[in-house]
Amino acid sequence: MAQFVNAKEALVTEALDGLLATAGGKLARLDGYPHIKVVYRADWERTKVALVSGGGSGHEPAHAGFVGPGMLTAAVCGEVFASPSVEAVLAGILAVTGEAGCLLIVKNYTGDRLNFGLAAERARALGRKVEMVVVDDDIALPDLPQPRGVAGTLFVHKIAGAAAEAGESLGQVAAKARAVVAKIASIGKSLDTCTVPGSPKEDRIPKGKAELGLGIHGEPGVEQVDFTGAKSAVDIVLEKLRPYLDGAGGGTRVALLNNLGSTTPLEMAVLAHALAEAGVAQQVIGPAPMMTSLDMHGFSVSIIEADDAELAALAAPVPMAAWPGMNKVVAVPVAPLPDGLTPIEPIPSVNPRIRATLEHVADLLIAAEAKLNELDAKSGDGDTGSTLATAARALKGSLDRMPLADLTQLFPALGNELSQTMGGSSGVILAIYFNAAGDACANGQTVHQALREGLRRVSEVGGAQVGDRTMIDALAPALEALEHGLSAAAAAARTGADSTAAIHRAKAGRAAYVPEKNLQGYNDPGAEAVALLLEGLAENMRV
Amino acid sequence: MAQFVNAKEALVTEALDGLLATAGGKLARLDGYPHIKVVYRADWERTKVALVSGGGSGHEPAHAGFVGPGMLTAAVCGEVFASPSVEAVLAGILAVTGEAGCLLIVKNYTGDRLNFGLAAERARALGRKVEMVVVDDDIALPDLPQPRGVAGTLFVHKIAGAAAEAGESLGQVAAKARAVVAKIASIGKSLDTCTVPGSPKEDRIPKGKAELGLGIHGEPGVEQVDFTGAKSAVDIVLEKLRPYLDGAGGGTRVALLNNLGSTTPLEMAVLAHALAEAGVAQQVIGPAPMMTSLDMHGFSVSIIEADDAELAALAAPVPMAAWPGMNKVVAVPVAPLPDGLTPIEPIPSVNPRIRATLEHVADLLIAAEAKLNELDAKSGDGDTGSTLATAARALKGSLDRMPLADLTQLFPALGNELSQTMGGSSGVILAIYFNAAGDACANGQTVHQALREGLRRVSEVGGAQVGDRTMIDALAPALEALEHGLSAAAAAARTGADSTAAIHRAKAGRAAYVPEKNLQGYNDPGAEAVALLLEGLAENMRV
Repeated sequence: MAQFVNAKEALVTEALDGLLATAGGKLARLDGYPHIKVVYRADWERTKVALVSGGGSGHEPAHAGFVGPGMLTAAVCGEVFASPSVEAVLAGILAVTGEAGCLLIVKNYTGDRLNFGLAAERARALGRKVEMVVVDDDIALPDLPQPRGVAGTLFVHKIAGAAAEAGESLGQVAAKARAVVAKIASIGKSLDTCTVPGSPKEDRIPKGKAELGLGIHGEPGVEQVDFTGAKSAVDIVLEKLRPYLDGAGGGTRVALLNNLGSTTPLEMAVLAHALAEAGVAQQVIGPAPMMTSLDMHGFSVSIIEADDAELAALAAPVPMAAWPGMNKVVAVPVAPLPDGLTPIEPIPSVNPRIRATLEHVADLLIAAEAKLNELDAKSGDGDTGSTLATAARALKGSLDRMPLADLTQLFPALGNELSQTMGGSSGVILAIYFNAAGDACANGQTVHQALREGLRRVSEVGGAQVGDRTMIDALAPALEALEHGLSAAAAAARTGADSTAAIHRAKAGRAAYVPEKNLQGYNDPGAEAVALLLEGLAENMRV
Repeated sequence: MAQFVNAKEALVTEALDGLLATAGGKLARLDGYPHIKVVYRADWERTKVALVSGGGSGHEPAHAGFVGPGMLTAAVCGEVFASPSVEAVLAGILAVTGEAGCLLIVKNYTGDRLNFGLAAERARALGRKVEMVVVDDDIALPDLPQPRGVAGTLFVHKIAGAAAEAGESLGQVAAKARAVVAKIASIGKSLDTCTVPGSPKEDRIPKGKAELGLGIHGEPGVEQVDFTGAKSAVDIVLEKLRPYLDGAGGGTRVALLNNLGSTTPLEMAVLAHALAEAGVAQQVIGPAPMMTSLDMHGFSVSIIEADDAELAALAAPVPMAAWPGMNKVVAVPVAPLPDGLTPIEPIPSVNPRIRATLEHVADLLIAAEAKLNELDAKSGDGDTGSTLATAARALKGSLDRMPLADLTQLFPALGNELSQTMGGSSGVILAIYFNAAGDACANGQTVHQALREGLRRVSEVGGAQVGDRTMIDALAPALEALEHGLSAAAAAARTGADSTAAIHRAKAGRAAYVPEKNLQGYNDPGAEAVALLLEGLAENMRV
């Protein structure tokens, strides 16, 4: 699978430099690429206990993304899924450790333990105070003597980070970290394996299955279980975590919902919904990618029963964008719908002249059905005539309900009627037209001004101008000419409609997606409808 | 492709409820599921201009994730890639619009324009002040009359959001939004298409190619270009953006680096590195998922030349976790390596008795090579004997360089020598052992205490205890017995080593991965080495 990398050898160093270049100067690194990859706080003054974590890369934003005030002082990064060397860890320790000492937070993998462990010894030999905690939160195999360190490590980073930031001693910070390690539990679930750069992807998980209890380095899960949806996926994970949710800790249950890599935000939110519905946690961190496994399509849930001090530490804001913060799990706040959604039914009124005009308009559109369908077949699906005719028939049937004596009311009433009976974009456009015209009337404008205001709004919302091969090509010149009478308007509409036959490329509406040659020589059906309508009305006046 | 969803029909509503349940009460929604999906600020008091945005779902965290102080007041969400209805938009407007009015920020798609447009008209008819801006930042096709709205929309949300939060009038907020729309540009690039829930995945992009100028709804890109790596991918995108980077705006160039969905944080950081190296932007927002296209494996770059007021608006902190903040693009800050990485060469000194003992130890290990290899073949790769013998030979050759007269120096010197000549986990473990012992000596402990302190540290770092089938099974009882003399220690080591033959399952070290039956009846080679060593030394004393 292709990935956005350059040389595989430079993957981690380029990624770290990308992080550093876009961190605004808040992060620095040690010299020593490619072997020594240490990212640390540029503002660090060695006056407090330093927290150093790290391990193999491929788990971003862990660990370098959590370097900053209130969390890590430095991250020592290995190559993808490979522990950093003793020298790299030692460099990290020496770079940030002052009189207050240093706590190493290490995930429980042999390589990390040994390399961080020896670096700690060497730093001690150089006179540094160094403590080390090993995080082993994975409960995939309950009887495993060496459980892995996974996303629960973030709890340790955050709680120890808050303690160090508060100026506590190395002993206090380490004790808090060990207390956290003793009570956290995590388990992951995935629909697919991860893609290690430069290696072929392992196709291990069959369709319809998910892996439960997998690691963050592509290790197979403890079991493959049926996958029947997001809710059951979360329920199965929570069932495994249940022994750690017995309330024995007596504190507040905090869940950390971690994206293992390529799960979409939409899916993560669905998983968050299932987690919230399950009612196991009072507080939640995420959903967010925190401890990923490259592009693994999965998630993990980590749990802690936090005492008040731990809860405050988890809640303390930090400036790193990668930390999603902690929120109370709440019942979804739902507010009633506002008034005004249902259009107010207008009070019917009588105006024989307006009624006759509207009936005539409707008849003209009904008569034009076949001709307009034929034109539309050139650029669309051939239903413009039928759509308008159907709406016209419905309009005729609605006239008894219409406020015919009051244009301010009639315009929006027409708009709402058309949006309901026409459907689709055309209905919405005419609804906008007549609503805007009604709005203008209500604001004291003349009918002529109101009709032009409607056009302005339709043009603004729909994005079409004269020349774009839409009904506007007929309507705009017609409304300009209307002050000289209906015949002048009809003539202008005809000229405008006929001009559309020469527009080779539509710039708006559906015809924009039709090849140019299909359009040439045919009028736009919307513009033609406007022209036919005005010609018919003008004809009628002359009779 | 399997996804973490339940019923497809409930995907968006469940995801929104997941967001709401984990937002700690900061967000609320309107009643009216499934048709009306409106998320808004729970703390909103209608005293300022409301900002309403939205559109189809599948772009998370846009838009609901950006609802909060300083950005959106409400998000109106449609189904995946489908515009919300007029009624839904109207409900959103009416729910949040007070005297100050409301600005609609709409991406340039016909459905969104029409539905937001008609909702605006209906809200105006109900007496609300409503303005609308249409974002069309996509430059995939430079001559497209209706460019799409993509990730540049975030610039509008943020700058208009800051203006609204500052209490500016609707006219001022709308004017600022329009000024932003007029100068932003975006383009995306992807290695794969997105997976629409419930639809088969389109396999459109051949191996070795990437799509340039794609949309955020799975629309094909404008062209397929060769994909040769992250750097060239960024360079091609920047080349398209070059006309918008001419400095004509005269302001500060800000790039927004957007993850289109499933690009890993590691890849995004590599892309950020390429972007920073290109030197086109002085400030950067991201990399982060902001306007995604479900699980699309791609990225987009959006550009604005921001004036000082716009820059301040973009920089203003907001509490929403989805907003990654803006940072100055900096040259990577690199600090020199700290002193102390290279172990100080000890000053050689003479002690014939110690020298003889070490030579004897080395000879014993060399003599045990074959036997230990044979044992190791049962549980590992059969090289324990050779590893120890090689180290022993090197040790003999190093004695002239050793500070033999000073145990405080000798212990760490031995550790460093062994870690270099043995390699692997064993070398690190012995290095930890001897460094810790040296540390203890330096702190005034006796040799006996120091040897036990070394064991304690090895056990802490390596995680192994007595009974785990490691060298500790021999070493621990031997060190306990050492106060009664070397013979007692040797006897204890032998008992301990022999006990490992009955340990069916290793709990630490490499043998933990070996089937139980392979281990039964054979001593652990590490424990056996300790026993042989002490037996040899004790024998020598008796001679």
